[in-house]
Amino acid sequence: MFEFHLHASDGNARVGSFSTPHGDILTPVFAPVGTQATVKSLTPKQLQEIGATLVLANTYHLFLRPGDERIARLGGLHKFMNWEKPILTDSGGFQVFSLAQINQIDEDGVTFKSHVDGSLQRLTPEKSIAIQENLGADIIMAFDQCPPPYDREINQRAIARTHAWAERCLKAKTRPDQALFGIVQGGVFEDLRTKSAQFIASLNLPGNAIGGLSVGETKEEMFRILELTNEILPKDKPRYLMGVGTPYDIVQGVARGIDIFDCVLPTRLARHTTALRRKDRLNLVNAIYAEDPQPIDATCECYTCQNFSRAYLRHLILAKEMLAATLLSIHNVFTLIKLTQEIRQAIFNKSFHTLLEEFQSP
Amino acid sequence: MFEFHLHASDGNARVGSFSTPHGDILTPVFAPVGTQATVKSLTPKQLQEIGATLVLANTYHLFLRPGDERIARLGGLHKFMNWEKPILTDSGGFQVFSLAQINQIDEDGVTFKSHVDGSLQRLTPEKSIAIQENLGADIIMAFDQCPPPYDREINQRAIARTHAWAERCLKAKTRPDQALFGIVQGGVFEDLRTKSAQFIASLNLPGNAIGGLSVGETKEEMFRILELTNEILPKDKPRYLMGVGTPYDIVQGVARGIDIFDCVLPTRLARHTTALRRKDRLNLVNAIYAEDPQPIDATCECYTCQNFSRAYLRHLILAKEMLAATLLSIHNVFTLIKLTQEIRQAIFNKSFHTLLEEFQSP
Repeated sequence: MFEFHLHASDGNARVGSFSTPHGDILTPVFAPVGTQATVKSLTPKQLQEIGATLVLANTYHLFLRPGDERIARLGGLHKFMNWEKPILTDSGGFQVFSLAQINQIDEDGVTFKSHVDGSLQRLTPEKSIAIQENLGADIIMAFDQCPPPYDREINQRAIARTHAWAERCLKAKTRPDQALFGIVQGGVFEDLRTKSAQFIASLNLPGNAIGGLSVGETKEEMFRILELTNEILPKDKPRYLMGVGTPYDIVQGVARGIDIFDCVLPTRLARHTTALRRKDRLNLVNAIYAEDPQPIDATCECYTCQNFSRAYLRHLILAKEMLAATLLSIHNVFTLIKLTQEIRQAIFNKSFHTLLEEFQSP
Repeated sequence: MFEFHLHASDGNARVGSFSTPHGDILTPVFAPVGTQATVKSLTPKQLQEIGATLVLANTYHLFLRPGDERIARLGGLHKFMNWEKPILTDSGGFQVFSLAQINQIDEDGVTFKSHVDGSLQRLTPEKSIAIQENLGADIIMAFDQCPPPYDREINQRAIARTHAWAERCLKAKTRPDQALFGIVQGGVFEDLRTKSAQFIASLNLPGNAIGGLSVGETKEEMFRILELTNEILPKDKPRYLMGVGTPYDIVQGVARGIDIFDCVLPTRLARHTTALRRKDRLNLVNAIYAEDPQPIDATCECYTCQNFSRAYLRHLILAKEMLAATLLSIHNVFTLIKLTQEIRQAIFNKSFHTLLEEFQSP
């Protein structure tokens, strides 16, 4: 369990498979985000038809509602949301720091106000692991502090805390059927990122993640940090770039040795009337699509592109019909999953450079 | 085309098939409503998996947005909404009288303000047919006036107008691949309903509808009018009870010779957190379902009941997730379609009375 086998590589890009209790994950993989135990507007059946394997769910949200203990009593997250393939839960750290009103951060953990009912709540490394064990995902994440990328002093304190918390998470963990991944932090600072990657690598966890990127820094900074970090993180463990997922970022991430991606982008854009394509986006509310009989992308094999015109999608959007979000989500998630399939094929064929040339700019 | 074959009967209940350019409709049939060229929150694929054949769309809404001429240029309604099976469009009459701010009703037609942009619009029998020919449904409806059920004088004037308009619709109609159905009006007044049914029957149309019911009158009044009307309307043509669709009403309607039903009920209840069952309803927002691991209905074969608990559905509702409406719509529409399948089987088996006994009260 939790073995990572490398099947092919092309430069730093590689194809692997990571074994979990709910099946193997072929990497590079894009994981759609099911924040509240649902990938917004899609049924699990639709997700499966799109080709999704790994799905992410959010510890912070599920802890607050409906509650991790309730989900455990109902048989765990896989059964609750009817997803039989692998699930990854984050630690709640990122959401506490970005969504909640924080009352106190100390060495032990974070006290914050629930965005659901205003109640005072506390997360610690031990509590995050207890919640994630109740949820029962295949991959669980160490509780970390994710600060703004440019403040050196805060990042220095945050990595110290993140490292201590990672050790406590490892110690608190009891379930053998869950893989704990550590998270590298350190903002845009090379020395902090180096130190953090060295520490996280030393824990010898079944996988490693890079957090705190795509949160305001430039693409160049992100890529430099990825190159630096992936030199240190072990090659024989999967590397997970958290919260990143434009087509450009995925291809560039793979080029630098990343195996796992997740992002709300495809479903969020869908709810904001926007279709994601490999190299551009269409905002379908635009009047130029009013009588456009073409699909979003004539080369796309998704259910939406095979059956519906831009004109129909625009009509659904203007008429405020829920089906608009569903059909756009199907297309957008498919686009990213299809891209990872092409990336894997290109790596097998040693032609990844051709894909990379196609994605020289965002 | 548009032949109605009767395959079996049991009392006044009968099984038939109505042939259309997009396939045969087995009756009794329940048609889900796709007001704006989408059955709310469901893909055509999901609708097909549920077992839907006939789908209804609304002339009034599609005339105003995106416009019937636009839909015609895009290849017609079947292609636009990707529904390859039969479609029925109403005449716009009911919506004009219930949704729009009416400026003028005269013998020629109705002038009203669009609910979309406030613009002044006019519908006449000829215009309704022109719109419905642009949309291209298999079954189209005569333009009628649907008044409140208890005002005798208004109903008297309304049937005179409805009859004159039905003749004008028949005259205006040009497409041989569409079946025009006439509509019986007359409120709760037996003599008016008799007169109206006799007139509509005399037009010898391929099907006949009963309008202006389930709009405030009692069940007893509705059933009496159905019995009266169906004695007059020809037995060898399908009879369509417009806008009616609780399980009780469907079974009672079939017992009185009705073949076609449509209603927004299943999808509207779904958006209001309510699951429809044969004999009762569950409002899934209720706290008693918070940890209920059961499906909505343990005997139901729909995708929702096969895969999701009441606890999960309640969680989706409280978390304001769109998937709640989708999963409830799948179950609710399936429940009514499954009921019509059982009705047909019971009629074939001459055991319809057993079903009827189950539905003695609403």
